[in-house]
Amino acid sequence: MVETSRAPRRDSYTVDTLLAVTVRVFNERGYDGTSMEDLSRAAGISKSSIYHHVKGKEELLRLAVGRALDGLFGTLEEPAATTGTALARLQHVVHRTTEVLLAELPYVTLLLRVRGNTATEQWALQRRREFDHRVAELLAEAVAEGSLRADVEPRLATRLLFGMINSLVEWYRPDGPDGARTAARVADAVSELAFHGLRASD
Amino acid sequence: MVETSRAPRRDSYTVDTLLAVTVRVFNERGYDGTSMEDLSRAAGISKSSIYHHVKGKEELLRLAVGRALDGLFGTLEEPAATTGTALARLQHVVHRTTEVLLAELPYVTLLLRVRGNTATEQWALQRRREFDHRVAELLAEAVAEGSLRADVEPRLATRLLFGMINSLVEWYRPDGPDGARTAARVADAVSELAFHGLRASD
Repeated sequence: MVETSRAPRRDSYTVDTLLAVTVRVFNERGYDGTSMEDLSRAAGISKSSIYHHVKGKEELLRLAVGRALDGLFGTLEEPAATTGTALARLQHVVHRTTEVLLAELPYVTLLLRVRGNTATEQWALQRRREFDHRVAELLAEAVAEGSLRADVEPRLATRLLFGMINSLVEWYRPDGPDGARTAARVADAVSELAFHGLRASD
Repeated sequence: MVETSRAPRRDSYTVDTLLAVTVRVFNERGYDGTSMEDLSRAAGISKSSIYHHVKGKEELLRLAVGRALDGLFGTLEEPAATTGTALARLQHVVHRTTEVLLAELPYVTLLLRVRGNTATEQWALQRRREFDHRVAELLAEAVAEGSLRADVEPRLATRLLFGMINSLVEWYRPDGPDGARTAARVADAVSELAFHGLRASD
């Protein structure tokens, strides 16, 4: 009798690699539609091995959306987001937000799909609103300094701006042969269209 | 015995009013997650009464997304979309597309959420791609005439443009005391931001 053949498959996961599997399953099946059984099957390890890393499904959600939120809020603390004109700070935040979204695509996708009623989902929605609010304030500041048009109210402008940026999760796929350059090109395009629009400059 | 007390509840629906109930349920529960039983309960009429109007769930979907598609494609046939510079035609289509989205909000919401594998869903996805393609062509024409910037490729610009417009289904609610004026203000804001961006003109 070969004892090792009965041993459970070795759990070589870290929280980070387990999270990568989890976020893929959450995005495919929805958070509500995903059971610990589904996660166990997708990861190829037992449920008890998953419980060795985290308390359960809700902690995995918190870690996954936390990663997206840390990336987004991090952009607000970067030097270029904290010094200079409001316009320059906003331009930096818009460009970096797009870069974070593309770099952390599955995590931001999950964040943007959060809808539910658990404490973690409510927390994620609240943090997302806080981020939008911080950007809306920056936008209002840039209007006040005269750099941005005053005829579109900042809250509406912020919503349309994030509408454009967040729509990337619907179609952008980083798999191409030239992912990093494509991401840079997309982030540049978002910045250009956001601040200058489609019209050719005269 | 009062015979009328046993009569089925009178079906005062037309296809249009039945569709209004249906599209609300589809948007709440998802097309796949909606049964004829759910529709019967929401409409307060029997399933056989619904079958009196339509063949079934898939026909209701076809009629609902058809209404959204008719509205969107209709904008391409309007005089201002067929004569004049490519820029003027594109500006008209962007403004009218936004107006149609806001006026037919539940129907366009349903169209934008179509994902599945039934023939009707495939047809809806195909028609939606056709519409995007028509707008992308118009945008390319406006680039070629020198009215629009050439440094963002038309396909990417179209995606970001529709990202901004389509995001309205996520938050716009027409219930306010001043719905029509709000819709006009939003459509103007979309046009301004799309063509001129956030920057104040010098």
